[in-house]
Amino acid sequence: MKALIAIDSFKGSITSIEAANRVERGFTHAGIQCEKIAIADGGEGTVDSFLFNRLGGIRKTFKVHDVLNNNVSAPIAWFPSSKTAVIECASASGIQFKDQYSQINSTEFSSVGTGELIKNAVDLGAQTIIVGLGGSGTVDAGLGLISGLGGRFLDNLGHEVAANVQQLSNIQHLDLSHVNLEDVQLIVASDVTSPLTGNSGATQVFGAQKGLSDNQIQVVDQGLKELARVLDPKNQGQEPGDGAAGGMGFALRLLGGKVESGFHLVAENADLESKVQNTDIVITGEGQIDEQSLHGKVPVEVAKLAKKYQKPCIAFVGQQIGTLDNFRAIGLTSIFSIVDQVMSLNQAISQGPELLEQMAERVSWLIK
Amino acid sequence: MKALIAIDSFKGSITSIEAANRVERGFTHAGIQCEKIAIADGGEGTVDSFLFNRLGGIRKTFKVHDVLNNNVSAPIAWFPSSKTAVIECASASGIQFKDQYSQINSTEFSSVGTGELIKNAVDLGAQTIIVGLGGSGTVDAGLGLISGLGGRFLDNLGHEVAANVQQLSNIQHLDLSHVNLEDVQLIVASDVTSPLTGNSGATQVFGAQKGLSDNQIQVVDQGLKELARVLDPKNQGQEPGDGAAGGMGFALRLLGGKVESGFHLVAENADLESKVQNTDIVITGEGQIDEQSLHGKVPVEVAKLAKKYQKPCIAFVGQQIGTLDNFRAIGLTSIFSIVDQVMSLNQAISQGPELLEQMAERVSWLIK
Repeated sequence: MKALIAIDSFKGSITSIEAANRVERGFTHAGIQCEKIAIADGGEGTVDSFLFNRLGGIRKTFKVHDVLNNNVSAPIAWFPSSKTAVIECASASGIQFKDQYSQINSTEFSSVGTGELIKNAVDLGAQTIIVGLGGSGTVDAGLGLISGLGGRFLDNLGHEVAANVQQLSNIQHLDLSHVNLEDVQLIVASDVTSPLTGNSGATQVFGAQKGLSDNQIQVVDQGLKELARVLDPKNQGQEPGDGAAGGMGFALRLLGGKVESGFHLVAENADLESKVQNTDIVITGEGQIDEQSLHGKVPVEVAKLAKKYQKPCIAFVGQQIGTLDNFRAIGLTSIFSIVDQVMSLNQAISQGPELLEQMAERVSWLIK
Repeated sequence: MKALIAIDSFKGSITSIEAANRVERGFTHAGIQCEKIAIADGGEGTVDSFLFNRLGGIRKTFKVHDVLNNNVSAPIAWFPSSKTAVIECASASGIQFKDQYSQINSTEFSSVGTGELIKNAVDLGAQTIIVGLGGSGTVDAGLGLISGLGGRFLDNLGHEVAANVQQLSNIQHLDLSHVNLEDVQLIVASDVTSPLTGNSGATQVFGAQKGLSDNQIQVVDQGLKELARVLDPKNQGQEPGDGAAGGMGFALRLLGGKVESGFHLVAENADLESKVQNTDIVITGEGQIDEQSLHGKVPVEVAKLAKKYQKPCIAFVGQQIGTLDNFRAIGLTSIFSIVDQVMSLNQAISQGPELLEQMAERVSWLIK
């Protein structure tokens, strides 16, 4: 009996790799052999997921600049044989800096470090660079990212202006003459389909969680509209994904990037489909499985693959909302919550890893 | 795929029959065929369990007297072909009367109705009478029970004395000349092994939950000791089971009754062992499975039978205390709690039936 484990993180409780390890430990009791895949969606942990899932990668760290231009170490997953680099914007431009610099408003944060990471990847010799766009803390439309790569912004007099939110409406030209991305395929790993501006745009949807006031959201959104009109006269920032990571999606598209689903990139790197074909049972899961999960979240994507190859697929979750029938219809065989007795939410979260392992053991004896 | 369901009640939440029905409904989703057995331990529900588990029984009700000599209807399960009657002391002499007569102390309660039920069973022509002793509310050493059968108590002058706790120390003779139990096999269904008196006796262990004060417990225990010395000079009420049902165990032994485990009687009546042999998987459970369960509670007894015939056995529980290994060692394949998300104890209890059904469905897809 062989099980393939491809389980998402339980946000705030268990990382994807920890979850896979716990399920494996639970299954060991019943002697079930496990293959594990780490799941990521482009956010924090994406670099390590790629390294976990495919041999031959090297974890390199680089000193770049964080959102306030202080030094920060950030990783790149480097696969020499395929000349592929994987970076995540979360490491140098992530939402964690909102807490670290709690006195400073996010409108002053720069995504420069992410641009510097891309530049380091180019310098490594990367021909493919995957940029994970989850967990960002900036709203600068990727101006910092472009500047980190050597790009410059000019006003209507040809003078250089700073790459920050305050200058959005002063920018008239983008100078990419020093940006060296020739022969590099830039892949944007993101599941966000928002445009740059408007009601479903970067600031109106994500601004509040990044600490912007209502007024700041209006001002920044207006500035982004002016920027998009100048730099992107054809699409004006309305392409799906432009609004990802506070507009880094927009900047990366201007640089030639193509958006792909973070999960699909991870799955491809991990050879998920062929591993599903070669296992007896597939294990997936996430913190909460619900109606939204049906629209492309990890367990459902995994279940669809399992169904394609007629493999049973079990999800471990913190909470299931909705009837089992709905989830069975897309390929899940059954769903088990890791909560196994009366307890508080805090208990469930803090004991998550142990609860998952115990539930995996219980289930293992049935599937053996 | 055929499942045998033999699941105990979840106290205060789900009866054994409801539990079996809910598991069956859950299993129906996966097309698993179910055979159901109702579990009882001699307490409330024993009569209905026997009727549920074996065809050919008739449920007869009789007007007898409750603990304060008021009329009450109580059932007998009557199996004409085997001339077997099943009664339970809980119906006429049960703990529910403590709430119904909350102004009256339990020391004034009589077990007369249970004796009357036995008499009615004799009048039906019963050759075997099974008396379930769980859930009693009396502490009268079965004096009422004996009087309900026609027995009389005399003092040292040969005068009749009332069959109640106040007279315990006045009783010098037991007159059974009007008790007709010849040719009747009296079987006492009980899992209580307490003696009549002393530290592990009827009043010291069970008196408090029946509403006796510390002082009353001492007085009644002393009275029972004097009674036992007179009526049972050889054993003095120290036989295991004498302390069951406030001493009805003692009275029934004086009448020739033999104690058997309530669960084993139910199992025998239900042909549990042969049904285990003829199923693919056994389902059991109870409200809480714990260390105490290992000493003879229902799921463990069921699991032992399953192990004997090498059948997988799954327990559904409200809560599991102790590691799965301990329970697997005695024959349980796995254990699943019906609690499937963060919730309060009250929620778990009030939603018990639905939670059990949902968990049964989840498991059914794995065992199918």
